[in-house]
Amino acid sequence: MKETFSHIILVLVSFNLVLSCVCEESCDLGPLAQEIASYDSVVKRIIDYTVSGPFKGKTYDELAKFVDKFGARPSGTEVLEKSIDYMIDLTREEGLNDIVTEELDVPRWERGEEKVTMLEPRVKDIAVLGLGRSASTPAEGITGEVIVLNNFDDLESTPDEKVAGKIVLYDPVFTTYGETNKYRTQGATKASAKGAIASLVRSITPFSINTPHTGSQTYGDGVVPIPTAAISIEDADLIARIHARGEKVVLHIKMFSTLETKVSRNTLIDLKGSKNPEKLVIVSGHIDSWDVGQGAMDDGGGLFISWAAPVILKRLNLIPKRTVRAIFWTAEELGLIGAYAYEKKHRHESDNINFIMESDEGTFAPLGLAVGGSKKARCIVGEVLKLFKSINASTLVEEDSPGSDIAVFTGNGIPGASLHNDNAKYFWFHHTEGDTMNVEDPDELDLGAAFWTAVAYIIADLSEDIPR
Amino acid sequence: MKETFSHIILVLVSFNLVLSCVCEESCDLGPLAQEIASYDSVVKRIIDYTVSGPFKGKTYDELAKFVDKFGARPSGTEVLEKSIDYMIDLTREEGLNDIVTEELDVPRWERGEEKVTMLEPRVKDIAVLGLGRSASTPAEGITGEVIVLNNFDDLESTPDEKVAGKIVLYDPVFTTYGETNKYRTQGATKASAKGAIASLVRSITPFSINTPHTGSQTYGDGVVPIPTAAISIEDADLIARIHARGEKVVLHIKMFSTLETKVSRNTLIDLKGSKNPEKLVIVSGHIDSWDVGQGAMDDGGGLFISWAAPVILKRLNLIPKRTVRAIFWTAEELGLIGAYAYEKKHRHESDNINFIMESDEGTFAPLGLAVGGSKKARCIVGEVLKLFKSINASTLVEEDSPGSDIAVFTGNGIPGASLHNDNAKYFWFHHTEGDTMNVEDPDELDLGAAFWTAVAYIIADLSEDIPR
Repeated sequence: MKETFSHIILVLVSFNLVLSCVCEESCDLGPLAQEIASYDSVVKRIIDYTVSGPFKGKTYDELAKFVDKFGARPSGTEVLEKSIDYMIDLTREEGLNDIVTEELDVPRWERGEEKVTMLEPRVKDIAVLGLGRSASTPAEGITGEVIVLNNFDDLESTPDEKVAGKIVLYDPVFTTYGETNKYRTQGATKASAKGAIASLVRSITPFSINTPHTGSQTYGDGVVPIPTAAISIEDADLIARIHARGEKVVLHIKMFSTLETKVSRNTLIDLKGSKNPEKLVIVSGHIDSWDVGQGAMDDGGGLFISWAAPVILKRLNLIPKRTVRAIFWTAEELGLIGAYAYEKKHRHESDNINFIMESDEGTFAPLGLAVGGSKKARCIVGEVLKLFKSINASTLVEEDSPGSDIAVFTGNGIPGASLHNDNAKYFWFHHTEGDTMNVEDPDELDLGAAFWTAVAYIIADLSEDIPR
Repeated sequence: MKETFSHIILVLVSFNLVLSCVCEESCDLGPLAQEIASYDSVVKRIIDYTVSGPFKGKTYDELAKFVDKFGARPSGTEVLEKSIDYMIDLTREEGLNDIVTEELDVPRWERGEEKVTMLEPRVKDIAVLGLGRSASTPAEGITGEVIVLNNFDDLESTPDEKVAGKIVLYDPVFTTYGETNKYRTQGATKASAKGAIASLVRSITPFSINTPHTGSQTYGDGVVPIPTAAISIEDADLIARIHARGEKVVLHIKMFSTLETKVSRNTLIDLKGSKNPEKLVIVSGHIDSWDVGQGAMDDGGGLFISWAAPVILKRLNLIPKRTVRAIFWTAEELGLIGAYAYEKKHRHESDNINFIMESDEGTFAPLGLAVGGSKKARCIVGEVLKLFKSINASTLVEEDSPGSDIAVFTGNGIPGASLHNDNAKYFWFHHTEGDTMNVEDPDELDLGAAFWTAVAYIIADLSEDIPR
């Protein structure tokens, strides 16, 4: 019987079915379960206020005004700093005045002209976006034959002399972001090590309308920094088909950029706790964006539901025991720069972070949370999530180190969660010109803001800390 | 009882449910029904050969080679003429030598630099594609305030002095192509008549990744030809939101193009009929494409299933009584120029067109045919379609004048049909850089080629003509 049961568990595990299961029987929270259940009316009040009451449509409208006013907000730009000032003013208008900004050095990688042209077997413009921190080509550009590789194993098994002097094109079919992304982040370094003169990657997306997707990459130590860019999946497949027919593909690449260091700011907005103000429940999103698109989805939505949390609580006069801190991270896109700076600056008081939340994978309809932390931490959060059955946001996904910015903290064992939402199309728009307000939906943002606010409130108000 | 029955019919009509119903009880085809049913084994033979036999994958592979070699094939270009020569060679390789080309004058509208920039309330590049035959701006471009209109009624009800000197933006939300398309084709003419200096239109599509969609338009007689372009739905919505907040939107538009007359060719490939070679069943698609994208979907797919029909019949030695003629229309995109030329040249023998077919709305999984013609014509075609239940392609949609090129003929009462296929995403890619081989699917093309070939064969071989 026991063995049979183990087998069932194993089968469940192998299909990832346990991801959304925090088994009640293994979570004996004692009186805390009762306490959590008692927040039912508060949850209803927050949802009603946000989804059908005075706050209805507000998150979308404010996000639209913000995005339409500033557009793209790349790290190290004046427009990013102005957008930070705007958010501070918007927050003060709500009577929230515990606002601090913390300066830090950030990279300013500025894209210049970028043009990739297929010269052989015929002349064709290739849809391209340089990757963050890419080196420039010489003024006249570079010309080279393409070698198409499906993965790093293909690269390793190809003799150096067949790669040297060539342009490497990685053409991995999208599976998951985590699995495919490495060809963008490490592709140039690995190709350069084998003597390639440039590195291109099939855009990291399952769907495209000839849409290139940018993203960050870094050169490994001691590696010649070769120019590197993403091309559309259509152009990658075109080149791969021609290559597979045994024809030679020659590209000309011209791409220019500059890299400087500038100063930016993390923004901290506190709704001070009534009993333990030094203890923090953090809600967060990043305010910087890529230079393409409008930064509406990545991460305007996450920014605004995190802004909404202290605002809605203040409006409803719901002051929890612990402080709810909204953080607008800066310079996420070029490597979580703001999060690392915050972690370093506040490391001495990191014990005070009770729970840290982030929304940076879309603000489509909320489904629940992806939670990192101890078993008991997940049990408590799972119990909280039960209160969101009315909006179908009760799913708990177990992740070792959820989030992008907050992975800097959750990776250190601080309990935290990222927003789990209905984001199947997220990577269609990610890091493209298509990251605009058209991706966002007013009703879904209302649900997201309500969910985010209520979860933060409950965790900040519980009689017990979330244990590490 | 009768009245009740009428009511049911009315309800069915009002839900368009009769579209796919060719009612057997109202189609007394007599012995012809039996004759049509006897083609069952031929249909199976063609499907087997094309979908799982020697032709499996051939339509996609040949289309890919063609599209990868030539790419975009705009009317009036050398590349279009070379692609026509290539198709003739490819056809001769199959032992089909009854090939005729017919010259005609076609427009060569060549797109130059195009740049639209929002200047107020902030500087932003607008994703744009000029519309076919658009006039150029002066070298320095034009600058103007935008007036946003949802439809022509809005234009009519706006006093001329509020339109004069402005840039009109039509921002109609996509419903159907037929309904929304008029803002692209007639927008400039109507705006110009009220004194606008340029006319922009929200791209005609239900979905976008900041993707502009080009298309044709013509200026009405006596109208000042103002520059006209499509912008992405995202940029149109951005401008509309800013406009709705009462803020002024100012754009700078630079767009240049040239318009010449060149010579191109319609291509006619005949598989001569065994008994009545003068009688024709025509299968067709257009070989020209827009200058953006690769013309894989519009209309490479239609071109290649029409090429496949005589090729597959020749390979299987299936020679019907009437001639099966494949026509590769030229210069469809700028106004069905090739089709009009053919109709004029062959008008004296138009009685010989027994049935005319066209695929120009995608070659996704075939579902059946959209059929124009008399009731009896539809009855016969509906009976033929019953033979395609095994591949789910038995649906008959009634249309008064199906097709784009062939509307020139079906509009005159010649019976004909366009391919009805699972093309819900067709307009996502239509007239964009995203019209590439990635839209095409080998298996769906096999099904389309098999269906197209078998339908053409049966209609060309029946003992009775399709009646007018």
